[in-house]
Amino acid sequence: MRLFKKAAIIGVGLIGGSLALAIKKSGLAEKVVGVSRHKKSIDLARKRGAIDEGSLSLDIVKDADLLVFAAPVSVILKLAPEVSRIIKKECVVTDVGSTKKEIVSRLEKIFPGFIGSHPMSGSEKRGVAHANGGLFKDSICILTPTGKTKKGSSSKISLMWKSVGAKNIYLSPDAHDKILSCVSHLPHIAAFSLINAVPDGFLRFASSGLKDTTRIAASEDELWVDIFLSNRKNLLNAIKAFEGALSSIESAIKTNNRTRLAQILKKAKEKREKLG
Amino acid sequence: MRLFKKAAIIGVGLIGGSLALAIKKSGLAEKVVGVSRHKKSIDLARKRGAIDEGSLSLDIVKDADLLVFAAPVSVILKLAPEVSRIIKKECVVTDVGSTKKEIVSRLEKIFPGFIGSHPMSGSEKRGVAHANGGLFKDSICILTPTGKTKKGSSSKISLMWKSVGAKNIYLSPDAHDKILSCVSHLPHIAAFSLINAVPDGFLRFASSGLKDTTRIAASEDELWVDIFLSNRKNLLNAIKAFEGALSSIESAIKTNNRTRLAQILKKAKEKREKLG
Repeated sequence: MRLFKKAAIIGVGLIGGSLALAIKKSGLAEKVVGVSRHKKSIDLARKRGAIDEGSLSLDIVKDADLLVFAAPVSVILKLAPEVSRIIKKECVVTDVGSTKKEIVSRLEKIFPGFIGSHPMSGSEKRGVAHANGGLFKDSICILTPTGKTKKGSSSKISLMWKSVGAKNIYLSPDAHDKILSCVSHLPHIAAFSLINAVPDGFLRFASSGLKDTTRIAASEDELWVDIFLSNRKNLLNAIKAFEGALSSIESAIKTNNRTRLAQILKKAKEKREKLG
Repeated sequence: MRLFKKAAIIGVGLIGGSLALAIKKSGLAEKVVGVSRHKKSIDLARKRGAIDEGSLSLDIVKDADLLVFAAPVSVILKLAPEVSRIIKKECVVTDVGSTKKEIVSRLEKIFPGFIGSHPMSGSEKRGVAHANGGLFKDSICILTPTGKTKKGSSSKISLMWKSVGAKNIYLSPDAHDKILSCVSHLPHIAAFSLINAVPDGFLRFASSGLKDTTRIAASEDELWVDIFLSNRKNLLNAIKAFEGALSSIESAIKTNNRTRLAQILKKAKEKREKLG
């Protein structure tokens, strides 16, 4: 179904490129254009059929009736004012940033058609080379409407995510950032810390346990600096909770408290089994 | 190649059952017998062709010329004295315990033919139902000989692991426990703590990041209580290092130090990429 005439994606990396591919595949837009800071990404995105046209300049987004910011949080915040001067007022605008409070409060002021999105289908891989039109299939996409969000924007963006295979969940930007600080940002903190705590010389003894636990530590560092710093308050709370949980185990080991240690691990096992 | 007449496995769970299956498959022993505390496990191990005979009683290990302890550390330590009164002096003995210092120092005193092993091919799954004769293929097995280890035992056990597909590495029990505290025990501590730090209500928002990072938190709690408590000193040091790494990230977030945070994450990313 053709929802848009011209879709513009700012940032044709893993997520932007995958969304572009999925939009092309589903026929949601007549034309898809992409912006990147890197000519190589534009060329590859065109070659892979993700975009019809690409440019290093934001001017290409003019006349778009769908605009998606698919860049790191700080880049979205930096580009937004300039983009707002180029696009049409009626343009439906969303982003795929991993934190929502800061982005939503800034972007809904300058884009009348804005609603925040967070497709939860990232990967430690990056770049359009790894883009995949099926990336959003059976994934969760969190939409973060506010009192200012227009119904038309909300229903179009919701339909877009559904059409590319995602299941939509609605949360306030605040709730989103609090939940994500625990289920996504904290696991990254744990993975980054864990790999940094293992002496280099021991790495060759790593088996699947360490590998799985630290897989996401190979994520793009710049992207995660942005995410962490744009969700500081929630994240510092989540880290405190993690330190508390770690310290209970540490103290049970230190005091040789078998019963207490067994209780803690059993609770963890039962909780983990719920995740499937 | 037939190395043994009668192989006895004490504990036919995931590891013991998989080793029994692999020994049967490779023809390393004429006969394989198994001991378990649970009749169901014995029946299933026989049905799956892992053992020729099984028993709830240790008496069945009499006359074995290969004995493998495949039980949690505390169970191995508890059963060893009784087993030593039953088996032949010439019997080659090993174990698959995840910590080595305590087991090796106790078992080499009572079994002349002892050498410690640690096949690094566990899983969060348990029980003979998940046993798999290919479990050790392309895995690492750490052998921990000491000054007391007989050459004959060492070469037979080394050949056994090679025959079932493992690559052997030799370490002292001390070095083993220190390395494993970092590459295996600490990741489990991190995973248990992480899942315990996530509020129950948020679990439905978990994506692959949290799932991978906490997969091993579904591991058998009793087994890991044993492992943690039998490697306390090393593990407490590893936890301290982890807390240090965590606290560097926390402090960079707290102080909004983008440069420092980027350095830490970049170091982690580069280290993780080495793991493949």
